[in-house]
Amino acid sequence: MLEELKQKVFEANLLLVKYNLVVLTWGNVSGIDREKGLFVIKPSGVPYDNMTADDMVVVDLNGNKVEGRLNPSSDTPTHLELYRQFEDVGGIVHTHSPWACSWAQAGRDVPAYGTTHADFANGAVPCARGLTQAEVEGEYELNTGKVIVEEFEKRSVKSSECPAVLVHRHGPFTWGKDCFKAVENALILEEVCKMAHRTEAVASFDNNSNIGIEQYLLDKHYQRKHGKNAYYGQK
Amino acid sequence: MLEELKQKVFEANLLLVKYNLVVLTWGNVSGIDREKGLFVIKPSGVPYDNMTADDMVVVDLNGNKVEGRLNPSSDTPTHLELYRQFEDVGGIVHTHSPWACSWAQAGRDVPAYGTTHADFANGAVPCARGLTQAEVEGEYELNTGKVIVEEFEKRSVKSSECPAVLVHRHGPFTWGKDCFKAVENALILEEVCKMAHRTEAVASFDNNSNIGIEQYLLDKHYQRKHGKNAYYGQK
Amino acid sequence: MLEELKQKVFEANLLLVKYNLVVLTWGNVSGIDREKGLFVIKPSGVPYDNMTADDMVVVDLNGNKVEGRLNPSSDTPTHLELYRQFEDVGGIVHTHSPWACSWAQAGRDVPAYGTTHADFANGAVPCARGLTQAEVEGEYELNTGKVIVEEFEKRSVKSSECPAVLVHRHGPFTWGKDCFKAVENALILEEVCKMAHRTEAVASFDNNSNIGIEQYLLDKHYQRKHGKNAYYGQK
Amino acid sequence: MLEELKQKVFEANLLLVKYNLVVLTWGNVSGIDREKGLFVIKPSGVPYDNMTADDMVVVDLNGNKVEGRLNPSSDTPTHLELYRQFEDVGGIVHTHSPWACSWAQAGRDVPAYGTTHADFANGAVPCARGLTQAEVEGEYELNTGKVIVEEFEKRSVKSSECPAVLVHRHGPFTWGKDCFKAVENALILEEVCKMAHRTEAVASFDNNSNIGIEQYLLDKHYQRKHGKNAYYGQK
Repeated sequence: MLEELKQKVFEANLLLVKYNLVVLTWGNVSGIDREKGLFVIKPSGVPYDNMTADDMVVVDLNGNKVEGRLNPSSDTPTHLELYRQFEDVGGIVHTHSPWACSWAQAGRDVPAYGTTHADFANGAVPCARGLTQAEVEGEYELNTGKVIVEEFEKRSVKSSECPAVLVHRHGPFTWGKDCFKAVENALILEEVCKMAHRTEAVASFDNNSNIGIEQYLLDKHYQRKHGKNAYYGQK
Repeated sequence: MLEELKQKVFEANLLLVKYNLVVLTWGNVSGIDREKGLFVIKPSGVPYDNMTADDMVVVDLNGNKVEGRLNPSSDTPTHLELYRQFEDVGGIVHTHSPWACSWAQAGRDVPAYGTTHADFANGAVPCARGLTQAEVEGEYELNTGKVIVEEFEKRSVKSSECPAVLVHRHGPFTWGKDCFKAVENALILEEVCKMAHRTEAVASFDNNSNIGIEQYLLDKHYQRKHGKNAYYGQK
Repeated sequence: MLEELKQKVFEANLLLVKYNLVVLTWGNVSGIDREKGLFVIKPSGVPYDNMTADDMVVVDLNGNKVEGRLNPSSDTPTHLELYRQFEDVGGIVHTHSPWACSWAQAGRDVPAYGTTHADFANGAVPCARGLTQAEVEGEYELNTGKVIVEEFEKRSVKSSECPAVLVHRHGPFTWGKDCFKAVENALILEEVCKMAHRTEAVASFDNNSNIGIEQYLLDKHYQRKHGKNAYYGQK
Repeated sequence: MLEELKQKVFEANLLLVKYNLVVLTWGNVSGIDREKGLFVIKPSGVPYDNMTADDMVVVDLNGNKVEGRLNPSSDTPTHLELYRQFEDVGGIVHTHSPWACSWAQAGRDVPAYGTTHADFANGAVPCARGLTQAEVEGEYELNTGKVIVEEFEKRSVKSSECPAVLVHRHGPFTWGKDCFKAVENALILEEVCKMAHRTEAVASFDNNSNIGIEQYLLDKHYQRKHGKNAYYGQK
């Protein structure tokens, strides 16, 4: 079942390797068929080298495995919760890409410092609050998803306006209209996190240097790419 | 029309990928035919992987598309303004290369710290002033070009003596006698920005370490490569 | 003799190159046959390019060369001591990978800052004490192994719970159930060291940012991957 | 003439590209035939891509071109002076590798922070004094060589014990018994400079962390690899 989606999710997983976002088995991509209410996800702990499209696992929106010989990613309940709450999302990615993880480990939001960021997200990328001990010791991966959703609600950030989050002490989740767009956003987030740190570092050697993109420039770039009158790219 | 120039501009765009200056679609190269008053530029938002020379777009010096199925780069008006004001320029590049963007986001000129820089530019690489809200909300991409030209005029820097600029909160534009030289300068700028930050970082751990190239050494290197008695390279 | 193990150790050595953990001849992998009491190790100072499985050297647990045309790695006595004292270890790796070396040269333990670390080790990665002058001038490589073992004993850290150590002013040793797992751990350690430094750097630009993984989150990640009820990966 | 040496010097130049030590034309390797008193060097400003062994230039120890269609590297007089004064040297390399250049631009010696350094050089890698205005405006490239030699003499450092120098505000020169060893040393210097900066950076986040290799450990590593009783590698 869902052979076409399995193929796409499989290919999207391999893009993580191509884009240097993962080493070993450190990442997973999923993609959803909203009509059928099923999503396809990478199996847990399987190396990218000898993985096939057939190894992908099909899961329903109650978290039950519907098809697949292998266990789905241990992060499956996080994907599940995001699919349930972020209804515009068609694909989700989790990686341990080093720059995004470093911001997550530092527990910091990624500030919008320039137009590369503004082309991607309509404001800072949130670092969600840390999970409590009870949340960690309970349904940990599900609670990870709940805390992400809580953070976006608390801040009134829409998942469509910021396709990424940092999980505290852990690393990034990103999403998009399909699994390929979600991978693209994982790559952009890594670039944005790298540039954000370097911006602070470059500025630190010049007392007069103030940083932080002006709101009107943020709006301009975000809207020319994502707004209703967007004119970036082709029709 | 301009098939040869299209081929060159196409190849120069692919060099951005080879030199690791772009990910996804984050960059564009153009080249001009001064006799015909036409320039060729990458189409907007098109991935480098399946782009062909035929996808290049031809634009005249009034900014009108003369040939091409696709929309030209959204940065076309910036290229246009630079071609109109910097008359010695034959090719222009814009990227979001991470080191140059980090300096641009920090809003800092890149100081001349060594001979790698001096072989490239006859002084600091300017970071242009930020655009005003009115400039951003008006003809944004055209105004970006105007602010670059204004900055060079205000500082009495010739475009021939500094083939690069940082656009505030955004990233680099570079140029050269043709599109290949402009790409080469984009690569050099990225190296120079990387080394400049590391120079400040290395010096910061040694109180006695003063930095900044001596004027006579800057002159020597710039002139041996670009001066009228240049002796670097072959005749 | 031990042709199969030689082939594995040979391939594991080449993985160091693939994973960018070594340049030139800067690293060595060994693997042990516990039943026979023999281990196989890379020859000293031989480039990876034209090395063959046949060049591997067989050594017994008294440190005597049992087979091989070439000298074994100069670090052989360190491997030997670790095999003798860490009885659960099946493979050992030494590299000069740059991030791990930088922490070793700074003489610092690598703190557990996030889940990438927690998936790998059950606490900080120790930097062993420096060797005394007498230890350096005596049986240096053997003493290096002894100091590692001493450090783990002093701290009551089990080699099974932390598959890595930093040798003071020198660099990392890692281990695992076989030579491939030891290489994997060398790669993970390098990533963890990189992220740990960047975490401190990112946090340093935000006064309010506290770092260090919470004990319950460390436990959760370590146990879900390595505990008796581990559920990461496939059965 | 010297066809075999030309081939070696050609191949050694290409290794600079393979080892990521150069971009564009930013580096040059030479090798000397001491019996004939002639050295072979890369032509000036020629890209590595379409260079052939035949493009190498032969120069005598008075600095006269003896054979070759192209101009020799503009740095030829520096190589020349080093060959004249450092009689044990068989090959020389100059690059603009970024970490070494950053230390050179900061005007700092590279301190010996660990065994990677000690395996390479018997103490700090000197950054030579800056050239005076008169030296720069006179025979600049020759004076660069003279200042290097002066620095080694002033510090009583032998060229055999430290195969590298940083030219102030410029970048590294390295040497070795032949052109391949000189390239190897250029690679090692870049690694050592990278690790040295990171060591200072890692230590800076821990007040108690003291750095700098102990003299007896430096001696041990330097001697086990380069001393008369060296036991690293094969006979």
